[in-house]
This record gives sequence, structure tokens and C-alpha cells, in this order.
Amino acid sequence: MQRKSFGNMSCPIARSLERVGEWWSMLILRDALAGLTRFEQFRESLGIAPGMLTRRLDALVAAGLLERRRYSAHPPRDEYQLTDRGHDFRSVLVAMLAWGNRHFAPEGASVIIVDAATGAPADPILVDRLSRRPLVAPDYRLAPGPAASQGMHRRLSSGRRSRLLAEGRGTRAARKRAARVAGDSP
Amino acid sequence: MQRKSFGNMSCPIARSLERVGEWWSMLILRDALAGLTRFEQFRESLGIAPGMLTRRLDALVAAGLLERRRYSAHPPRDEYQLTDRGHDFRSVLVAMLAWGNRHFAPEGASVIIVDAATGAPADPILVDRLSRRPLVAPDYRLAPGPAASQGMHRRLSSGRRSRLLAEGRGTRAARKRAARVAGDSP
Repeated sequence: MQRKSFGNMSCPIARSLERVGEWWSMLILRDALAGLTRFEQFRESLGIAPGMLTRRLDALVAAGLLERRRYSAHPPRDEYQLTDRGHDFRSVLVAMLAWGNRHFAPEGASVIIVDAATGAPADPILVDRLSRRPLVAPDYRLAPGPAASQGMHRRLSSGRRSRLLAEGRGTRAARKRAARVAGDSP
Repeated sequence: MQRKSFGNMSCPIARSLERVGEWWSMLILRDALAGLTRFEQFRESLGIAPGMLTRRLDALVAAGLLERRRYSAHPPRDEYQLTDRGHDFRSVLVAMLAWGNRHFAPEGASVIIVDAATGAPADPILVDRLSRRPLVAPDYRLAPGPAASQGMHRRLSSGRRSRLLAEGRGTRAARKRAARVAGDSP
């Protein structure tokens, strides 16, 4: 089935999904960030059909997230290395890891982020690099950027500007659950 | 085509993708976070076929990310409201917004996060809530959680523990580009 392409849409979330908005693509990037580079390694890790893996790797190369490099001439064999852009997808995967631990680990977390020196579990939040304040309303809001279309200006008018950054009623409860599954004190 | 289900896999990224690893699902969540609740609103915003929208909304309700609420009895009409779990997906979308701006906005950003008081563009990074230090190696690493399987222990052995958190060679360059597209000084 033909999907609508979002490449021309100005929303940066839609543009990102245009490149990785697919189940396998994100798991391939996860494995690439874990150090896998070869076709057989991805295939074994994911249990993915070879034809599908070929298509997904090709798409990630075309989107500039992986680079193909020949590591053997006889027989011809390629490996796939993350570009800067692909490597930078790390932040999305870490946010997804934290969300998965908070909501889909009823038996406790399987993998957590810890302080390398003390072993204390970390609780990932998004902040501004400079101020280190959490990116939540009302301190922060969305705003049209320099290339915003009229449509984007309309979308971001009035009440909508802070919604994406508003903390939900349940965020605190989810955080407590996450601390428990990570093995913290309750 | 039948996809392999990752629900039983212990990786929290795979478990998250089990619920939202699909193009439309994430855009529906984006729109829900922007305040949309009704079928027609989602359909207009996304230009999505009604049958596909129904399936995606049903899946998001089944995964506990949206709640269906009847707002009109005659004619029968439902609206869709974010659950706590759905609202908490915000962090993933904000990370995706930042990544999209850094890499897929050659003409400049269309939407940015700004300090509500000063208007200064924010630069989103992931830190630990308590220490406010960036979640990058070597300060932080991955570790098996309390529910880690033997397979997860193996995956996280030795060299693999810090890879996901290692800053790429190009991260700094990408950040400079992002500052430019957001309208900062270069």
C-alpha cells in the first residue's frame, strides 16, 4: 500500500518519521548503535527476513543514516556504519528506552541507564543544554522557527504552543513506577 | 504481511515499538498532544484514510495510550483522550523534534522550543533528573535491570555497555547546524 509521504511537511517530527517511521528501521539503528555492522549480525539479532533487511538497510543508507562500506572484495561483502546523523538518533532511542521502562516493564526493567561510577539508576529527562531546566511548560513553549510556513504559524497559535510541553497528570506516578522497576527505593 | 511481534522481547525499545512503531501512530500521538481529540480532527490534520485511522486509533486504545469517551449519544460520537502513558510519550516526540531540526531542516527550522520568558531557543539534551549531568558515556552506561534475562546480560556484557550512550564524532557539528537553523548566532 502506498503511504503518504511527509517529506514536504514542515513538522520536524513528520520529517523524522519519513526516515525512520518504521518498526525495523529503529531496531536496526538500535543494533547499529550497539556496535553491529554486518548483514548477518542484523539478521541474527532481529530474526528479520533477508529481503526485508536489505530494503530497510537500503532505505537507511538513502536517508543518510548508515554508510555502506566494502570490507571484503572476494567475496564481495559490505558493512554498514552509522553516519553522524544516524548516531545522533541515539537521543530518540534513549527517550524510548526510558518510556518503555516506565510503562511496559511490569516485571521490572531489563536494561537501565546507571551512573558508571556509583551504579545508581538514572532517570532520563529532557532539559535545555545551557540552563539545564526541564523542557516543560510553562517555562518553555513551542514557537515558529525562521522557516515556519503560514500553516505552521496557525498551528502554533494561541493555546497550542505549550501543550506538547505540558506535564501530564500522571507523569509523576509513572516516574515512581519507573523508580521501582529500576530497583530504586519506592 | 505478518510482522514478528516484539512484545515478549525484553528490550524496552522493542517493547515501545510494539505499541507505537508505526508512522501513523506517532503522528496521531503528536496531534493528540497538540490537543486534537476527534476522529474528524485527526483525519483532516493527517490526510489519512478513514479505515486506516480507525485501525490506528483502535490499536492505540488497546495499547493503553488513548481512551475512548462518548461525547454524544445522538448521533453516537466518541472522542479520544490521552492516558498518562500516552501523554508521557511526549519525551520521545520532543527528542524526535530536536533530531528532525538538527538533520532535516536545511532551510531552517519550522518549529522550535524556546524559553517562554526570553524567547531564546532551547537545545534539548537528555540528563539525569537528579544530577542534571548529560546521559553520555563514560559518565553513564547501560546495565542489566532486576528483570534482565540471561540473553540481556550477554548483550550487555563488556564493550557494549556504553556504546548506546557514546557521543558521536559528529554530534558537536550537528549541534552547531541546529543552532544556526534555530536562528542562534553561528
